[in-house]
Amino acid sequence: MTNDADIAALDAADPLAGFRDAFSLPDNVIYLCGNSLGPPPRDAGDRLAQVTADQWGAHLVRGWTEDDWIGLPGRVGDKVARLVGAKPGEVAIADSTSVNLFKLLAAACDLRPGRATILSQADNFPTDLYIAQGLAGLSNGNRRLRTVPAGDIADAIDDDTAVVMLSHVDYRTGALFDMAALTAAAHEKGALVLWDVAHSAGALPVDLNGANADFAVGCGYKYLNGGPGAPAFLFVAERHQGAARSPLSGWMGHATPFDFGPDYKPADGITRFLCGTPVVLAVAALEAGIDVALAADPKALRAKSQALGDLFIERVEALCPADDLSLFSPRAATDRGSQICLTHPQGYAVMQALIERGVVGDFRAPDIMRFGLAPLYLRHADIDEAARILAEVLTTGAWDQPKYHDRAAVT
Amino acid sequence: MTNDADIAALDAADPLAGFRDAFSLPDNVIYLCGNSLGPPPRDAGDRLAQVTADQWGAHLVRGWTEDDWIGLPGRVGDKVARLVGAKPGEVAIADSTSVNLFKLLAAACDLRPGRATILSQADNFPTDLYIAQGLAGLSNGNRRLRTVPAGDIADAIDDDTAVVMLSHVDYRTGALFDMAALTAAAHEKGALVLWDVAHSAGALPVDLNGANADFAVGCGYKYLNGGPGAPAFLFVAERHQGAARSPLSGWMGHATPFDFGPDYKPADGITRFLCGTPVVLAVAALEAGIDVALAADPKALRAKSQALGDLFIERVEALCPADDLSLFSPRAATDRGSQICLTHPQGYAVMQALIERGVVGDFRAPDIMRFGLAPLYLRHADIDEAARILAEVLTTGAWDQPKYHDRAAVT
Repeated sequence: MTNDADIAALDAADPLAGFRDAFSLPDNVIYLCGNSLGPPPRDAGDRLAQVTADQWGAHLVRGWTEDDWIGLPGRVGDKVARLVGAKPGEVAIADSTSVNLFKLLAAACDLRPGRATILSQADNFPTDLYIAQGLAGLSNGNRRLRTVPAGDIADAIDDDTAVVMLSHVDYRTGALFDMAALTAAAHEKGALVLWDVAHSAGALPVDLNGANADFAVGCGYKYLNGGPGAPAFLFVAERHQGAARSPLSGWMGHATPFDFGPDYKPADGITRFLCGTPVVLAVAALEAGIDVALAADPKALRAKSQALGDLFIERVEALCPADDLSLFSPRAATDRGSQICLTHPQGYAVMQALIERGVVGDFRAPDIMRFGLAPLYLRHADIDEAARILAEVLTTGAWDQPKYHDRAAVT
Repeated sequence: MTNDADIAALDAADPLAGFRDAFSLPDNVIYLCGNSLGPPPRDAGDRLAQVTADQWGAHLVRGWTEDDWIGLPGRVGDKVARLVGAKPGEVAIADSTSVNLFKLLAAACDLRPGRATILSQADNFPTDLYIAQGLAGLSNGNRRLRTVPAGDIADAIDDDTAVVMLSHVDYRTGALFDMAALTAAAHEKGALVLWDVAHSAGALPVDLNGANADFAVGCGYKYLNGGPGAPAFLFVAERHQGAARSPLSGWMGHATPFDFGPDYKPADGITRFLCGTPVVLAVAALEAGIDVALAADPKALRAKSQALGDLFIERVEALCPADDLSLFSPRAATDRGSQICLTHPQGYAVMQALIERGVVGDFRAPDIMRFGLAPLYLRHADIDEAARILAEVLTTGAWDQPKYHDRAAVT
């Protein structure tokens, strides 16, 4: 069992310890919700002020050239590429994760004519499923969504499968899919794969090209710490960029948008997956978060994420009453992303009691308490303290108050 | 003819004169490009700083409830509604103009089964046409885009027309469409109408419900001064909100997104036209611009916009050599939006010479010089001075230098 001296030693030896200072975190909060919304990088405010005054205010419309706003989606996309195992020119910042899913699902389906099925895991993040349903609805029965339990995905891929759409990390359990193995299984059956890396990019090394992935989307506001509703990103493997087309053929994806011609002609490369005008201010804040993540050693990031998870499990099991509390995430660190989920029949009330005590995680129905373990800004001592507070809430029954049962909270 | 004393008197009597101080404009620039990108409202920077520190930084994920980020698209949409003649609950802030066009075009087509045609003006803003082409491409031949010259629109509406997609103000000429008359003509033939008010909202009163419009989209970064790539808005008339469906069925348009259920169920009202997570920081900057516009009297706004246009035409015609220079916009103020366009065979070089002299307009191929006349921050003296500088550039042939012919500029 870990003791206080061990915890202090772990933090003292942490090669990522200095990154905590790159973020602005409130006092008296142990923030275990970075898998939902990351905290502000300390210089996000300065970057916003700088772009507002020195670019928008000083250059006005000439910012498109003088500050190369027009190149912003690709320039910042190239930074994200380094976090997700992609090459320069394979990633762009654009729109929301949902909108990017729509573009890439449609593009993938078009590359597999004669196949109608979008295959996904039944418990995928809901917006992924909803977007596939919306695309199917536009397609006069030519495209359909089929979902199966996560463990059955590989066996369910068949010769009607156009694209397999999977989340790299399960948002409910924190389980990590084997990206390379599932991509290979899909390719063997002639299907393409679209990975949603919203719950992995920035928290652990992602290797899209190492896994031979075809398409991917990801989120800017979780482990990239880009701000609430930050622009998202999309990845299209270079080999698909010539043939793949976006159905959201807006002017920023045009080969020559400023010719203002009447017919859409897609740009070369990743640019064809842009649609409208990039949200320059929001991308500036996102870039602050990406720059912090880029400065971290990926191996150290993964090692710390796994160590924090192992520590949390160990401390919870050592300190908390076992009745009603169960580990919902994989026990093996190699099988997890960067969150630990526990179930408890009164999980909602327990989480509200934790939040009131400064331990901010979140709850997912019916009984899942999620604890995001962002390795850039969390200390081993935070994890230890969170487990202690959870134990106190459970041991004393402190959660059993009417105020903790109010379900008005949405996140 | 207007003289200097008249100009000074016009500015002295201008009821909107005080609004100029609400914006941050560089010295020595006469900014006639607000139809492309508006300048920063003076408090945009403070609002961004406040949301970053006091909301995102202080509340982290609880901002979704404590700061009602979840209600932001509708709350700021209700403010835009007051600018465009809509009711509360008919407008939402969302995505880009292009993405919103896709959603509403698809929704409109679905409301008119058996009709295949999206009808538009041949010189509509290109992204509008491109998006319609993208939607048609997804539809297995069930939807097609047909374009006709602007003057032929009313006659071209037939019983195959599902939706007529028009820009309220022509981005090339500045001509203002008769929204009520064209909407009535479409309805008479059983078609719906989608108006793009990107070049009118914020510069002149728009009356969507007065015109009985069905759908509309608009831009946040032109006359609403929301910042480069600011989020856009969409309008769906209340009578269509029950039946209309967005094909971009992301989680923020779901009836109960935080139930995380497997099947998409559209929310009631305008919320169903949301898709991904709202870009909170960018909406904060946009709201600063909208608040300035809301403080202005709409009648005064229109009167000043028309007066500035009339003045510019008068001064240009009085001062500039007539050879090669032509008025491209309608002469009658009632037929114009809030920009004046002139053609010149060397329009590109002339515009570059103007920009170097601090008169910032823009150029559209093949020969169009555009001068946006935003009534909130321009003075009559600015318009007079711009005309004088144009006259000087043309009279002296100052534009005829190699540096003014470099076409690298994109905007």
